[in-house]
Amino acid sequence: MKRQLGPSTAFFPIPAALIVSKDGDKVNVLTVSWIGIVSETPPMVGISLRRDRYSLELIRKTKEFTVNIPSANLYRETDYCGLVSGRNRDKLRDLNFTMLESRKISTPIIKECPYNMECVVKQEILLGEWVLILAEIVETHLDEDKINPSNRANIEISKVVNPLVYCAEVREYWSLGEKLGNGFSSGKEIIQRAGKK
Amino acid sequence: MKRQLGPSTAFFPIPAALIVSKDGDKVNVLTVSWIGIVSETPPMVGISLRRDRYSLELIRKTKEFTVNIPSANLYRETDYCGLVSGRNRDKLRDLNFTMLESRKISTPIIKECPYNMECVVKQEILLGEWVLILAEIVETHLDEDKINPSNRANIEISKVVNPLVYCAEVREYWSLGEKLGNGFSSGKEIIQRAGKK
Repeated sequence: MKRQLGPSTAFFPIPAALIVSKDGDKVNVLTVSWIGIVSETPPMVGISLRRDRYSLELIRKTKEFTVNIPSANLYRETDYCGLVSGRNRDKLRDLNFTMLESRKISTPIIKECPYNMECVVKQEILLGEWVLILAEIVETHLDEDKINPSNRANIEISKVVNPLVYCAEVREYWSLGEKLGNGFSSGKEIIQRAGKK
Repeated sequence: MKRQLGPSTAFFPIPAALIVSKDGDKVNVLTVSWIGIVSETPPMVGISLRRDRYSLELIRKTKEFTVNIPSANLYRETDYCGLVSGRNRDKLRDLNFTMLESRKISTPIIKECPYNMECVVKQEILLGEWVLILAEIVETHLDEDKINPSNRANIEISKVVNPLVYCAEVREYWSLGEKLGNGFSSGKEIIQRAGKK
């Protein structure tokens, strides 16, 4: 019924986010899939980087970075930023990305990514060959045309943003399919059914 | 062009994983979206739990838990496990889940979830009202019928597993749509194009 695959980092679905770091005039973009929210008080994000990553050097100097969520159509650019090192190559020269100024930090955001987060590093945890960076989210940005007039999220904002989905280990990029239901709501059917037992 | 939304935990796409914890005969299932891989040496996963979570009590006692990735069709059960606390209610009585024995730890996995990870807690980091738990992945399981005869991943294993996708803050459950490309491959087009410049 179940096949054992041994210890593995296979995990899905996960994001494929673009991390921008900056040192002086040098700006780099790295693709990171090992990223997620770790606290709400204050809002914090965690990203894991291999110790030898060029972006880690830049982030350690400035203690800041931005997280940029690409839409599904940017899957080639996203993959490219994970394949090439900024140590050897100026990735921005190869990409049609526009850098916009951040509000709270000096590292820019990527205009072409519909959702962006400005982050300030708070803590670093060594885990073997990897470094887990915990950072406070000090500002977020969403494309103006993806917010409805009442300033509330569109009903299907995920489809409007159309975030790229990655599946680690099997190495597959996917788009979103159909909306199945709402969080903190779809499960109420089961509560009601259970109540009648 | 960009609207600022302030510090926020909005993030997409992310998993909606089911965490099983156990204390004696008591087994609990909790939905967690703040979860991700944090190291490869050894394979480690990080999950963030609110300090008052019942599952945190159980995990602190046993130092172990399992991560179970639900397919898209389980979105109601997944939402239910985040709505209800195991402190007041035996969730397994309300769900049609089958518990299977793990191989390396004593906490079971959920048969109905196609992919499962056995985890042993290594470290705990307090982040405001949240606790980030870092755990080693000591075993993983995939449904036998989702592995092809050569024991290699199917070409579109993500579609076969059909993992549920969650988009935090906007609180939306989604299925996967179409496969766009392969990781460590799709970006090579950009490298080739850049080489010709």
